[in-house]
Amino acid sequence: MHYFNTTDVDGFSKLYRLNMINSITGFKSANLIASKSNNGDENLAIFSSVTHLGSNPALLHFTLRPNTVPRDTYKNIKETQVFTVNHVSAPHFEDAHHTSAKYDEAVSEFDQTRLVPEYKNNWYAPYVKDSPISLGCRYLNEYEIKENGCLLIVAAIEQIFIQEDLLMEDGWVDLTKGSVMAINGLDGYTLPQLEKRLEYARPKQINNK
Amino acid sequence: MHYFNTTDVDGFSKLYRLNMINSITGFKSANLIASKSNNGDENLAIFSSVTHLGSNPALLHFTLRPNTVPRDTYKNIKETQVFTVNHVSAPHFEDAHHTSAKYDEAVSEFDQTRLVPEYKNNWYAPYVKDSPISLGCRYLNEYEIKENGCLLIVAAIEQIFIQEDLLMEDGWVDLTKGSVMAINGLDGYTLPQLEKRLEYARPKQINNK
Repeated sequence: MHYFNTTDVDGFSKLYRLNMINSITGFKSANLIASKSNNGDENLAIFSSVTHLGSNPALLHFTLRPNTVPRDTYKNIKETQVFTVNHVSAPHFEDAHHTSAKYDEAVSEFDQTRLVPEYKNNWYAPYVKDSPISLGCRYLNEYEIKENGCLLIVAAIEQIFIQEDLLMEDGWVDLTKGSVMAINGLDGYTLPQLEKRLEYARPKQINNK
Repeated sequence: MHYFNTTDVDGFSKLYRLNMINSITGFKSANLIASKSNNGDENLAIFSSVTHLGSNPALLHFTLRPNTVPRDTYKNIKETQVFTVNHVSAPHFEDAHHTSAKYDEAVSEFDQTRLVPEYKNNWYAPYVKDSPISLGCRYLNEYEIKENGCLLIVAAIEQIFIQEDLLMEDGWVDLTKGSVMAINGLDGYTLPQLEKRLEYARPKQINNK
């Protein structure tokens, strides 16, 4: 096994450290967050930090780093309170990744990629057309993470769109059927395959060592 | 597309809602958090909310729901300040899932599975033997998420173990080479395959629509 301690990590080059530390917490979700300013400027940015927070009520969270590209996303969300979360699937991952390029605020990432905005159910923020799962979300709160200045955004999931064949009888959504991707580090795009759904785990009496 | 709004979700049965809402934020990391109480009781629990928070300093976060199994984890972390995060790989996912069963505090999940504790580098909390990536973490802070009573735990990554063949020249860690798994919903275990690593995204001038 390779072993590194805090002193080793401090001595890494910036890129080496970014690559390693972004990889070692495991696979991350691949989502496009779409928003629109009060002026009507659309914004689209890829995020790998969108995470389930609770089911009742349905909540998610994601983090924003200080001074990075998706600050347009933050500004739009603060202005309008709403945004959409759209899963990245195999046909779209290169375009999705391109939304991380640093464009001026007035430039819509929709115009710089083959991704297409779609307005549904009177939601102010655009959805991403052909995404297998899309969520209409409303900003609820933010928490400043004092340890590094990141903002944790907490949002309610108010609209849910799921491609027909992904939804199973018991409510479980088979992401692999939608070719939904997962991110490895900063730039590795992976396609998960289902191994197995497991039963609810109950205690056993036998020590099977 | 299936469409559901907040009223629909409120009307779901508890299990249907848990299955759906846990699935629709995308793939989640599969990690075993190991800890040990001051009394020496080991605890092991699977988490799907461990997420990268920052690289400099190296930070991660995860959430704890109120009144659920992993509260032993919380108690141990508060007592001792340290824990380990261990990636779940294909040979171990059924045992890893079993750690979600509700055992008494005095019962070690290591004794109820084939997972083996391993003490390394004088870290008080055990590591999980044969995990392809393991992290020695120190508790830094917690944030109460008022919207549903969850706790967000922020921790520093102080020790990093990476299986030799996973670490690439530029610091990127190839999780797929370690058969690291990703979780879909509450109980779906998936094995991601690498599609492609992409270049750093730079703005382009051409509108390619």
